Amino acid sequence: MKVGVLGTGVVGHTLADKLASLGHEVMMGARQAGNEKAGAWAAGAGSSASAGTFADAAGNGALIVNATAGTASLAALDAAGAANLAGKVIVDVANPLDFSGGMPPSLSVCNTDSLGEQIQHRFPDSRVVKTLNTVNADVMVNPAVVAGSHTMFLCGNDTVAKDEVRALLESFGWPPGDLLDLGDIGGSRGMEMYLPLWLRLWGATGTGHLNVRVAAGE
Amino acid sequence: MKVGVLGTGVVGHTLADKLASLGHEVMMGARQAGNEKAGAWAAGAGSSASAGTFADAAGNGALIVNATAGTASLAALDAAGAANLAGKVIVDVANPLDFSGGMPPSLSVCNTDSLGEQIQHRFPDSRVVKTLNTVNADVMVNPAVVAGSHTMFLCGNDTVAKDEVRALLESFGWPPGDLLDLGDIGGSRGMEMYLPLWLRLWGATGTGHLNVRVAAGE
Repeated sequence: MKVGVLGTGVVGHTLADKLASLGHEVMMGARQAGNEKAGAWAAGAGSSASAGTFADAAGNGALIVNATAGTASLAALDAAGAANLAGKVIVDVANPLDFSGGMPPSLSVCNTDSLGEQIQHRFPDSRVVKTLNTVNADVMVNPAVVAGSHTMFLCGNDTVAKDEVRALLESFGWPPGDLLDLGDIGGSRGMEMYLPLWLRLWGATGTGHLNVRVAAGE
Repeated sequence: MKVGVLGTGVVGHTLADKLASLGHEVMMGARQAGNEKAGAWAAGAGSSASAGTFADAAGNGALIVNATAGTASLAALDAAGAANLAGKVIVDVANPLDFSGGMPPSLSVCNTDSLGEQIQHRFPDSRVVKTLNTVNADVMVNPAVVAGSHTMFLCGNDTVAKDEVRALLESFGWPPGDLLDLGDIGGSRGMEMYLPLWLRLWGATGTGHLNVRVAAGE
């Protein structure tokens, strides 16, 4: 599949690497044409890997991954262009973490809205699926770095889109039974507001290779 | 131990019942003297159970449980009185859920502050420990209603206070290995901002008998 990965940071690189290793034709998109990090990634990631602008990556991809910094995601997707995103699944893995006030970061949107919802609202012709934002990049593409079974959430308004994302997550190594559908895109709110707890869990456990397993019933 | 339980709702009743069953001398505190729910609870909970105002319960207790509605907690603790709370452990189990805008509730404080922090800030001579707010009342006092091991968080600035609360949680049936200290009272932020995710988990699992287990490392 042709995948456009928006974002050149650790998360973008990690996801682009994984997708390329699975045989997908990945274009990494950056704000500017000729972005060094995107170019270096494409040069090292095999013949089916390429780099371009956000618009190039979105236009080329059949599926789009938003791996930009959450506070810059709407601008990045605006640059990608609604026409390039229309009808496509946008896998939103971003967190709207605002580090401008120091540590711990706050969220630039929360409580009565969320980034996932904002993206869906801004691009109504796209099908946004929020997932993977509750774990770090290593865990996203290799859930086995966390011992035992643990849960990956996903949410979105489009059932078919969620099925496509489930299949992608399973190809990353997530067992089907560990995927938990939280319903419509409004679930993004809880998934993003979990981040302050995640940061404390990181501190308490001493590792970013962490996640939670949902346990229910007797 | 003499315990003052502030709050006459389901959480207050459930915790007061459990504490009384463990042999503690429990006074349930309410806004008004002669509160019917508190009186009915005390009448049915054995000879060491009693009811009074927030100030009565706080003055009488060696340990205080804040089980009031989170949006009313600061007013309740003000009514209890700083002098009655000074030097004591306040176990804060409340969530600042604001239902005034309908479902889902928002949080009346979050992101750059939390109820647990606000209480500690308002009552600097008390030792606030945030815990139990991440599960429903049944799970608080009977963790075995959720299958397998699952994690109870606690946080607070005072290590001795946290040790006392650990002992209390263990007496409720929480295995020591399932208790996770998230550090200072700033951890309340993550513990309270988890609530929107908890609400979605409730929807997804179909039961309030749910919790998460933290999994880390390989």
